[in-house]
Amino acid sequence: MKVDGKPMRTIWLADDGWGVEIIDQTALPHRLVLTRLVDLESAARAIRDMLVRGAPLIGATAAYGMALAMRQDSSDAALAKAAEVLMATRPTAVNLRWAIDDMRRRLTGTAPPQRAAAAYARAAEIADEDVAICRRIGEHGAKLIEIAADRKPKGEAVNILTHCNAGWLATVDWGTALAPIYVAHDAGLAVHVWVDETRPRNQGAGLTAWELGQHGVPHTVIADNVGGHLMQHGMVDLCITGTDRTTASGDVCNKIGTYLKALAARDNAVAFYVALPGPTIDWTIEDGLRDIPIEQRGGEEVSLITGLDAKGEIATVRITPETSAVANYAFDVTPAHLVSGLITERGVCQASQTGLRSLYPEVSAD
Amino acid sequence: MKVDGKPMRTIWLADDGWGVEIIDQTALPHRLVLTRLVDLESAARAIRDMLVRGAPLIGATAAYGMALAMRQDSSDAALAKAAEVLMATRPTAVNLRWAIDDMRRRLTGTAPPQRAAAAYARAAEIADEDVAICRRIGEHGAKLIEIAADRKPKGEAVNILTHCNAGWLATVDWGTALAPIYVAHDAGLAVHVWVDETRPRNQGAGLTAWELGQHGVPHTVIADNVGGHLMQHGMVDLCITGTDRTTASGDVCNKIGTYLKALAARDNAVAFYVALPGPTIDWTIEDGLRDIPIEQRGGEEVSLITGLDAKGEIATVRITPETSAVANYAFDVTPAHLVSGLITERGVCQASQTGLRSLYPEVSAD
Repeated sequence: MKVDGKPMRTIWLADDGWGVEIIDQTALPHRLVLTRLVDLESAARAIRDMLVRGAPLIGATAAYGMALAMRQDSSDAALAKAAEVLMATRPTAVNLRWAIDDMRRRLTGTAPPQRAAAAYARAAEIADEDVAICRRIGEHGAKLIEIAADRKPKGEAVNILTHCNAGWLATVDWGTALAPIYVAHDAGLAVHVWVDETRPRNQGAGLTAWELGQHGVPHTVIADNVGGHLMQHGMVDLCITGTDRTTASGDVCNKIGTYLKALAARDNAVAFYVALPGPTIDWTIEDGLRDIPIEQRGGEEVSLITGLDAKGEIATVRITPETSAVANYAFDVTPAHLVSGLITERGVCQASQTGLRSLYPEVSAD
Repeated sequence: MKVDGKPMRTIWLADDGWGVEIIDQTALPHRLVLTRLVDLESAARAIRDMLVRGAPLIGATAAYGMALAMRQDSSDAALAKAAEVLMATRPTAVNLRWAIDDMRRRLTGTAPPQRAAAAYARAAEIADEDVAICRRIGEHGAKLIEIAADRKPKGEAVNILTHCNAGWLATVDWGTALAPIYVAHDAGLAVHVWVDETRPRNQGAGLTAWELGQHGVPHTVIADNVGGHLMQHGMVDLCITGTDRTTASGDVCNKIGTYLKALAARDNAVAFYVALPGPTIDWTIEDGLRDIPIEQRGGEEVSLITGLDAKGEIATVRITPETSAVANYAFDVTPAHLVSGLITERGVCQASQTGLRSLYPEVSAD
């Protein structure tokens, strides 16, 4: 989408044809910093330290990480090691695994001297496929926004609440949850987005607000506590979030706090949609609450907050007493029965086994 | 409760017999700063700028503010002006109004030369009454914690989730939501408190964590998004929050985000209690969602976060893009049907017209 009026992606091959460039998202929204990945380690670090985040972008970065690794050493041992190192970076993201498995399978069947070229080509394909998938998610989801618009007085903006960042910064372009919003906005529909700040890492306040603002989409940042109040007062027409992992029965594992918004949506008869690309569906599990391990991250993400200080420099402040314990669960599971529908690249379906299999009939039953 | 091992209150008469001392809560948890109120304006500013906060403490501070005003000028005009200035400081807190009305009524019936002395005496009484009320809330509520303890393996801590700060810092001593926890803890019961950080002002991370830590109560700070996940996994035995305003039918208006936790509690069959002193009940209204105006505060409370920087100095950082709009609704309403019970100084009752009238039979029907 647009940055300073010009189209941009989150990851691309450098002009020299082998380096990989990314936006260092830890510097947003205050600075637009581009970072160059040059080897396996820098790609793994970019994922681990969340310079890139969002399931689809993690997948694309891992694919390019495999390519960078093959450029250094294309042996079977190096291939196995690259897969292992990248897999260990983020335990919850299912299409990290998908991208690595896909790359490994193809490269295993390729002779070592051809592996680097094959890896770059496949990584570029994965990135382009993600863009196409997100664009289709956007087209399908935009219809839901149009339906909401038709129910409102003419010209009044459709109010959409989103949590975390499932925008183009979380993918290669377009985004998942925000793709329908970009498609609707670009088509001239009046939309306004309530942006949950999304503690503890503030991806809403920092990333979603930034990318919506750069593309010209009206939005308002709110504390995560506010959504319920807005829904009680008819100020939200629909919710759209992303998901890091979706079970075969339609449970969604997304950024911590998503579940609370889904509860508020149900209590106030507000539609709650979840947007996802097919590769994030984990067909091997049914019960998200029972079967999805929830990543626990360091407590300092809660205690310490980074932003721009009065001098315009990036600084970090502590908000808790030094002696207080802090817990940091990164995701929660929203049961399928709270989800009004899943927006995929193949259309919108019910959040259920039946709904998902109607769109993905090629997936064999267990 | 204890600070550095010694008992302390949030407001007290200075040794000189006329100044009023408070803890400047905006410096917590990083520094313990005491501030002296010397006139009407400093008392009003302390409330307006939230050096003191919490409905009962606001009431006590307003009462002392009337006393300071009478010391300066005890005329009828000064009395009317003091009431007006103090009333304008915070629109939502119902016992701000209660304390001011109580003081004005008594002082109107007192000859001007005696007004200052009468005002100081009554302010001290209001403060002492608040302490007695909170202590009784604590005793009634502690029984609910004991019941939860009896259901757990012997010696395992009862996990209690709280939102915002309804501890002794929000009152003169003991607190409302935290009073049962202090009583249970002091009686030797094992308790552990999940402390919602409570964006945007972080009263949980800053105040609740600080006061629990100072008193030696085990606790863990979490982002506001986490409570639902904890409840889904059986990690919360009960919730206790405060309320700024309670309707005659038991709806509670409390810090923004309370409603979301009440929804999660109901969805997971976790008891959700609200602790309150009788004076915060607004008998004149029934429907909290319809009738309670919700204070909107400045967006900079969301955009800017204050804490301790790397040099140990209090600093403020911005987390949103400069150009993004921000909304800041300060409270929400939790409907009575989501509340398991109200803990008052007279006992625990159902959150309903019938429940409240059983404890407060002297309140006449409309």
